[in-house]
Amino acid sequence: MNPDMTPDLITPALRERLARSCTLLNREPLRDYDTGDARALLARADILFTGWGAARVDAKALAIAARLRLIAHAGSAVKPAAAPEVWQAGIAVTAAAIANAVPVAEYALAMILLANKRTFPVRERFRTERKLWQPQWLAPGEPGNYGAIVGIVGASRIGRRLLALLKPFDLTVLVCDPYLSDEEARALSVEKVTLTELMARSDVVSLHAPSLPETAGMIGRTQLATMRDGATLINTARGALVDHAALTQELVSGRLDAVLDVTEPEPLPPDSPLFGLPNVVLTPHIAGAAGYETRRMAELLADEIERFVAGKPLLHAVTAEMLARVA
Amino acid sequence: MNPDMTPDLITPALRERLARSCTLLNREPLRDYDTGDARALLARADILFTGWGAARVDAKALAIAARLRLIAHAGSAVKPAAAPEVWQAGIAVTAAAIANAVPVAEYALAMILLANKRTFPVRERFRTERKLWQPQWLAPGEPGNYGAIVGIVGASRIGRRLLALLKPFDLTVLVCDPYLSDEEARALSVEKVTLTELMARSDVVSLHAPSLPETAGMIGRTQLATMRDGATLINTARGALVDHAALTQELVSGRLDAVLDVTEPEPLPPDSPLFGLPNVVLTPHIAGAAGYETRRMAELLADEIERFVAGKPLLHAVTAEMLARVA
Repeated sequence: MNPDMTPDLITPALRERLARSCTLLNREPLRDYDTGDARALLARADILFTGWGAARVDAKALAIAARLRLIAHAGSAVKPAAAPEVWQAGIAVTAAAIANAVPVAEYALAMILLANKRTFPVRERFRTERKLWQPQWLAPGEPGNYGAIVGIVGASRIGRRLLALLKPFDLTVLVCDPYLSDEEARALSVEKVTLTELMARSDVVSLHAPSLPETAGMIGRTQLATMRDGATLINTARGALVDHAALTQELVSGRLDAVLDVTEPEPLPPDSPLFGLPNVVLTPHIAGAAGYETRRMAELLADEIERFVAGKPLLHAVTAEMLARVA
Repeated sequence: MNPDMTPDLITPALRERLARSCTLLNREPLRDYDTGDARALLARADILFTGWGAARVDAKALAIAARLRLIAHAGSAVKPAAAPEVWQAGIAVTAAAIANAVPVAEYALAMILLANKRTFPVRERFRTERKLWQPQWLAPGEPGNYGAIVGIVGASRIGRRLLALLKPFDLTVLVCDPYLSDEEARALSVEKVTLTELMARSDVVSLHAPSLPETAGMIGRTQLATMRDGATLINTARGALVDHAALTQELVSGRLDAVLDVTEPEPLPPDSPLFGLPNVVLTPHIAGAAGYETRRMAELLADEIERFVAGKPLLHAVTAEMLARVA
């Protein structure tokens, strides 16, 4: 993995814990398997503990990794860390997607609560005008956080975690997801709707679908056009879900607000108008695990490694069948 | 009350509901009791439904309000709506402080979650530099929302609501409040500490104390100086709690971050440096009930009025004894 990750992720306590069930081959993380030393380590490893910035385990790496039985990945998306050949070789893969879902869901929750009060454009206006205005900062019909309609696109791990976090609030929650059953929707106290209905009815739309060929551009010109004036689009998922030309047009005109932690491309070119707009909150992909939040991933993977070593089934295995539905 | 409030607060449904237990004397709200018409209405009223912007019921108004038995106030702070003579005259007072606590606690929760990830200064930096920076946006030792220490100053209605909202998150919560018992602190799963310890240990401090003579300037130069570099002060309570000269110095130097929904004075003078700082989020007192959120207050007061008319005890009475502890 990228060595910048290790100070927070691989704490002395975690290293000690891992050393009780495994022999730790290296202290400094490898980024790739190109050096002789790295290849020698790879040849000896039963388990790889991988993270952001790791070179992908592909056919070439597998040719060296004769003993490899498990890849434990400190991240959500396993495809950058493991090529399809990993599954073909019968190597188990587990990932800390659930642990990385937590901070993203928390970030989206916070942004939903603030977007419903139009906090960000109000802040920008206050910054510019430097005086109070009357009668109120909310336009007539803008609900605040009482009866506002929140649309969640994708009942993914992050989407479901967010649905749980939204329970204490007086909000109406709509969800669209092709894999969500009516029974599940009832159990989650949400209304299952089509994407079209979700976009049209929501005060705030938050995206939590995986980035797949069939989800690319799913939030296009038509979907954006059906959003009500002053509604907010929150994207903490992937920029590829959204047609950015269409979105930019809606944001430059001031008709919609947006909170964009991810974009397409990422980062946006420096001359993108989105950087300067008062109705856009643009951040550099920070919703996921950072700081101590990465320890949640490491602790989950330590649990998984201990189970694997003890011959117990993994709780967060990523199987070949799942690959079509996850990023 | 201020007539700008009524479209959201006094909906047709609420008016109909009130008309089932009371005779409604006027459709348009009074702002004061200075006109002959207003005085005539006041003389006939058993109950006043008051809100933000209402003239205070004082000795002069009481001299006219011969039948008055209840003031139901759609706000948190009753003192601007009712003079001490109201209690001396044996008139009951009820207020929707609990309902107004909800949006403030929700706003503070959202800001705590974002402050722990340093979202706002990161956003400003991204806006200025328009490129990613390495290795991470969090400085070493900045926790994110895993193990971060959150200090809540004041286990007020809002403070307690916030403590309940903070439960699903992996945060350590410190509270200082002279009226919070050790048993209550245990029941709330929080650590009861002194203000000095709270300021020194917290990554984020959120103020929820009432504005009283003895709390004025309680967050002074000394308290601010004990906060760690890069910590965030959130104020959704009252500007008077904070020494703004000392705070401005800490913010201009960039040592601390702040989220200020209230200030002293309010609004700040247009030449205040706080408007332009990248480490300060300044909003014009928006955390409290707005839009449909005000309906929560109206519904609570309708409950109270119905209880009063039926001869049942009020659930949210503000008594003379409570006045010393509330704003």
